[in-house]
Amino acid sequence: MNENAAGLDGFALRREARDAPASGIVEVFQYARDRAGLIPLWVGEGDQPTPEFISRPAADALIGGETFYTWQQGIPPLREALARYFTRHFGIETGPHDYIVTGSGMQAIQLALQAVAGAGDECVYLAPAWPNFPAALEVAGGKAVPVELDFSENGWTLDLERLEAAVTPRTRALFINTPSNPTGWAATRETLSAILDIARRRDLWIVADEIYSLFWYGEGSRAPSFLDIQSPQDRILYVNSFSKNWAMTGWRVGWIKAPPALMPVLENLVQYSTSGVPQFLQRGAQAALDGGDDFVAEHVARAAEGLDIVTTALRATGRARFARPQGAFYLFFAIDGVTDSMASAKRIVDETGVGLAPGIAFGPEGEGFFRLCFNRDLGQLAEAGDRLQRYIAASD
Amino acid sequence: MNENAAGLDGFALRREARDAPASGIVEVFQYARDRAGLIPLWVGEGDQPTPEFISRPAADALIGGETFYTWQQGIPPLREALARYFTRHFGIETGPHDYIVTGSGMQAIQLALQAVAGAGDECVYLAPAWPNFPAALEVAGGKAVPVELDFSENGWTLDLERLEAAVTPRTRALFINTPSNPTGWAATRETLSAILDIARRRDLWIVADEIYSLFWYGEGSRAPSFLDIQSPQDRILYVNSFSKNWAMTGWRVGWIKAPPALMPVLENLVQYSTSGVPQFLQRGAQAALDGGDDFVAEHVARAAEGLDIVTTALRATGRARFARPQGAFYLFFAIDGVTDSMASAKRIVDETGVGLAPGIAFGPEGEGFFRLCFNRDLGQLAEAGDRLQRYIAASD
Repeated sequence: MNENAAGLDGFALRREARDAPASGIVEVFQYARDRAGLIPLWVGEGDQPTPEFISRPAADALIGGETFYTWQQGIPPLREALARYFTRHFGIETGPHDYIVTGSGMQAIQLALQAVAGAGDECVYLAPAWPNFPAALEVAGGKAVPVELDFSENGWTLDLERLEAAVTPRTRALFINTPSNPTGWAATRETLSAILDIARRRDLWIVADEIYSLFWYGEGSRAPSFLDIQSPQDRILYVNSFSKNWAMTGWRVGWIKAPPALMPVLENLVQYSTSGVPQFLQRGAQAALDGGDDFVAEHVARAAEGLDIVTTALRATGRARFARPQGAFYLFFAIDGVTDSMASAKRIVDETGVGLAPGIAFGPEGEGFFRLCFNRDLGQLAEAGDRLQRYIAASD
Repeated sequence: MNENAAGLDGFALRREARDAPASGIVEVFQYARDRAGLIPLWVGEGDQPTPEFISRPAADALIGGETFYTWQQGIPPLREALARYFTRHFGIETGPHDYIVTGSGMQAIQLALQAVAGAGDECVYLAPAWPNFPAALEVAGGKAVPVELDFSENGWTLDLERLEAAVTPRTRALFINTPSNPTGWAATRETLSAILDIARRRDLWIVADEIYSLFWYGEGSRAPSFLDIQSPQDRILYVNSFSKNWAMTGWRVGWIKAPPALMPVLENLVQYSTSGVPQFLQRGAQAALDGGDDFVAEHVARAAEGLDIVTTALRATGRARFARPQGAFYLFFAIDGVTDSMASAKRIVDETGVGLAPGIAFGPEGEGFFRLCFNRDLGQLAEAGDRLQRYIAASD
């Protein structure tokens, strides 16, 4: 139950809304958001503002008067740019009819869920997990069923039998986030095939969250994707976002890739939630796709260096346990002897000025861990590593 | 059932999503959106782009790098500007804690509904109505119960006994849009008191959509409002939008005014739907509130002239029936002998190049009517009036 519910007596709110949990990431962020000298590694965003080659076309379109209602599916040039992007990076044949533009990756998830699952339905997801997926389903009256990934310092692993055992007659979808926020786990091509096989046999949708595909530290230029193995008739909704690749967290623009037959349904869901995405912002998003490959590559390379800096610093303490992430831009680590991650995250902010997201924010499966975002300035990461080393040594 | 559902066999969509009706406004708009020489009076927006005193601060903030995640409730300076706006125009004491910024007025409605009603719940609304309110509730699994306004050429009227008779034990809220889109009906202060009395006695929320308050053609400077009569403990959620007053339809920014105790719940609903509104857009919204009173007054004065132009033209035909709107910026009129408004709206586009929204888009209660937006260039309205006069005369 929401801790604020006490003040809500007499207001007769809908139970699922009243009881929606506050984000634990937001809780610690609010605790110290404006502290001087803070190194904020808690939130899932980089430290660079949107580059001007993206923001300028949007600003020009805004000043130029592209301020009217627009296509519910998104403007055609943006959807054509999405198709080019997927052909370039994923080698698939695709066209503008495969995409619908959404008001953030979060809204992409909300709309995908609205399309396939509602009150009384279940969806299975892998935990620890970014908390907004289960929360969005539960606000809609559905039930989010976690399947725990197994932790070892050699890597997180998914037990496929456990995944299938979580499927019930009420299950409508498997929500698969790979590479994973917060763990850095990524499904191999073989694992993706096994998941797809379960979905086919059990008549389930897959909601695929592959937004970190290009933040990839393994073989090849990106993480394995359901796009590598799916057939046209498979029921997969790909939810995605401009936020991470192109430093556009504050823009709130994303997209869904879906079977074209679903577009009229998804357009209605857009119409009855936010009624479209600002056209002038879509001009910037198009510039990101068409001109942003070098920008993304530089940031992925920097993140790989950041990953080395923070893992080296934490390994040297002898008391931090983690699996080296395969993708995304988070280090998810435990500290020996620490069990209450929310209290510790606040203490770490107070004593070191380093902002970490507490593992409990990613579900009970994440308790005892901390999430550190390493998509940041490398000097700042080195400084954060030093401070965390001192903190861990002093708290022995 | 959605006419597109036939192509969806085998996709196992959620029923409420699959069956959501397409907007009838969008249908005729798509039918002829790019026709040359069209006078588009079908959509609920004016013909002016956002003025530069609003768009420039937003563009500057975008280029200046305000492109990170921001407050889920909205930035404090914008909420302070909202409080000043309501003090100035509605004479109430209020502060920034009374407001939450949303990704459009549509999202304000969606979130207000999520807070109070869901699967199996009912909400009562007045019809004919803008279709997105009932559709948003039904997509969420609720039931929207229309109460028909009575038409006469002296004005639309609300039968309060009929309103109360529509309330059942499952009713959670009354959705009251005044001044009304599409009818132009507005509740008097006495009617608002009677509605509030029903809500108090029957333990209901009121979701108040007063976005057209300042587009008002009666006594005083604005329409009567629940703000004039409510007590602090009343359960009223005011949904609102920057779209209409400040020519910002394409921005997708709105707000909810709600009891402050609800803010943590509403912030969670924002977090789990779109996770906030771009901070750079909020800078423009603040400029609209603080510097936009003259702009709004000029547009309201122009709309009043536009209203005279279109009513004079249609009255001269002797075959158009309508009540002069008290507020908003739509003329909702019937043509003697015309019963199928969708077919006729398409024929009118084809033969006259004037785009009207078909009354059926506003529910069966609107069949036989057409909605004409008169918040447009006056010369264009005069031309549209001439063309409609000729069409009506020729189709006698």
